[in-house]
Amino acid sequence: MSDNSDNSSPAPRLRIRIIFSDETRLGPGKADLLERIRDTGSIAAAGRTMSMSYKRAWSLVEEMNSAYRTPLVTSTRGGTKGGGARLTEAGEEILEHYRALEDITVDKGAVQIEQIRAMLKDGPGKK
Amino acid sequence: MSDNSDNSSPAPRLRIRIIFSDETRLGPGKADLLERIRDTGSIAAAGRTMSMSYKRAWSLVEEMNSAYRTPLVTSTRGGTKGGGARLTEAGEEILEHYRALEDITVDKGAVQIEQIRAMLKDGPGKK
Repeated sequence: MSDNSDNSSPAPRLRIRIIFSDETRLGPGKADLLERIRDTGSIAAAGRTMSMSYKRAWSLVEEMNSAYRTPLVTSTRGGTKGGGARLTEAGEEILEHYRALEDITVDKGAVQIEQIRAMLKDGPGKK
Repeated sequence: MSDNSDNSSPAPRLRIRIIFSDETRLGPGKADLLERIRDTGSIAAAGRTMSMSYKRAWSLVEEMNSAYRTPLVTSTRGGTKGGGARLTEAGEEILEHYRALEDITVDKGAVQIEQIRAMLKDGPGKK
């Protein structure tokens, strides 16, 4: 969608939430948390980069770990450095599938997104 | 995704939000509101079906009307029946594009959604 060189507005971003049931959902918050746990090796540090409290980050991890057949995150709690955490193979897979879904929507839905954007006052057609 | 006849859990639903800028977004709330205005002919009635206050529904309509080059909803305010409302051609088009984006994601992303779902404890693989 950056093929319009006249267009200085940034590309639209998507936030996708999959609702499996009333209790079981996967959206951008959990996906970003998984990604940042992978990158930082710490649930607390991952939460901080998202301005998320330690308690909230832990709560989301516990929610994910109990929703899936295999935990998505393993962690050692406590210790002087606050423990470490990493994604399990299942955690890596879930993150990968979710990011792929985002990429597919941006790619296959590009026409629809652009049609909506073109109707905005600050859309790409405005000079 | 209903090709697995052993599977009694309902099909996952998606909620997609397109973020054009910090101020300009289109997500399931506005799309549903447009759809219900189209179906009920009234902003107040549309809001009620979504448990949304009259004030909130009006505020979303005004936000949409000012974000797009052409208003999405026209309305006659007040009167004994509380006025009427309908979608403009632009409103119909935005709603159509948004629903098409949802359909494309469900269709083209079916594999990814199913891969995530299959890893859930209450996913389709569970007997």
